[in-house]
Amino acid sequence: MIDLFKYCPHCGGTVEKKAILDDTQLRHVCNSCQAIHYLNPKIVTGVLPIAGDKVLLARRAIEPRMGFWNVPAGYMENGEKVEEGAERELWEEANARVKNIRPHLIYSIAAIHQVYMLFRGDLVDATFSPGIESSEVKLFNESEIPWNELAFTSSAVCIKRHFENQKNNSDKVHLEHYIHTKNL
Amino acid sequence: MIDLFKYCPHCGGTVEKKAILDDTQLRHVCNSCQAIHYLNPKIVTGVLPIAGDKVLLARRAIEPRMGFWNVPAGYMENGEKVEEGAERELWEEANARVKNIRPHLIYSIAAIHQVYMLFRGDLVDATFSPGIESSEVKLFNESEIPWNELAFTSSAVCIKRHFENQKNNSDKVHLEHYIHTKNL
Repeated sequence: MIDLFKYCPHCGGTVEKKAILDDTQLRHVCNSCQAIHYLNPKIVTGVLPIAGDKVLLARRAIEPRMGFWNVPAGYMENGEKVEEGAERELWEEANARVKNIRPHLIYSIAAIHQVYMLFRGDLVDATFSPGIESSEVKLFNESEIPWNELAFTSSAVCIKRHFENQKNNSDKVHLEHYIHTKNL
Repeated sequence: MIDLFKYCPHCGGTVEKKAILDDTQLRHVCNSCQAIHYLNPKIVTGVLPIAGDKVLLARRAIEPRMGFWNVPAGYMENGEKVEEGAERELWEEANARVKNIRPHLIYSIAAIHQVYMLFRGDLVDATFSPGIESSEVKLFNESEIPWNELAFTSSAVCIKRHFENQKNNSDKVHLEHYIHTKNL
């Protein structure tokens, strides 16, 4: 990843990667005010809405992966709980609401500094429609899932584990990390 | 929270909070290069090591909450999986190793932009000792837990839910958020 962190957000001084006492890796340190800027992974939060044997997916109207299907999800914002973020993303992308939101998948993509925290929830009614970032929102049963037209691997894992859980009548929470979809 | 994000890390230009088309809140935008800087919550990752009816806690040798007991945990780093971060923190703080690491508690503190992702794991052997950030590391059974000397609420919730799970022979994953410890 190109390092674009070159100036200090606090004082505008130049930033260099330096060794810090008792730290295990180089950190971005301001040459002027000496502030240490820690860069950490971001959380992508989302929820898979369930309606009987179907799940609700949204077709992306924006890049990246425009036109592909996705579990409604997005970056968690400061000031919210992670499950609130998931419900907000569902509302923004699919104008839908769930109840009984529960943890489902914790999915790390180390290389791009992301952790997906995906939930399952029960769709409260059949009211849904494309939000501003979606072109289409639709319920799919397992045999209808467009596996080759999913936007991100995280969605494939999330959906696959949901149907497994449903078959096993289980609420197992899955801890996984990025692998090629052919190995799912 | 005081907003210290005043200069653009990419170009050093001044940053202002501005409205963005189709966004739901003000963002930090560079007046010079127009870069939008999204600020997001950080993940605190950790693991509660289990040995029979006991759990391993570490006494903090650093601020904040120096001298108080804690579930080994710390900020997740870029480039790692969330469970790797938990294992790293356990090693750094307690020179200990766990196997069978499993999700236990997802705990949001919205006001300070943190999500705790805490795991449970089985201590691999009785080899542990204070790491550089700890002054003492010790096994406690439920009746020995120093409830009034815990460093953070997250640790209290984590430990309490662990003993509940253990009594119920359950691996339930808990989704919670900050409340006063007297209401736990």
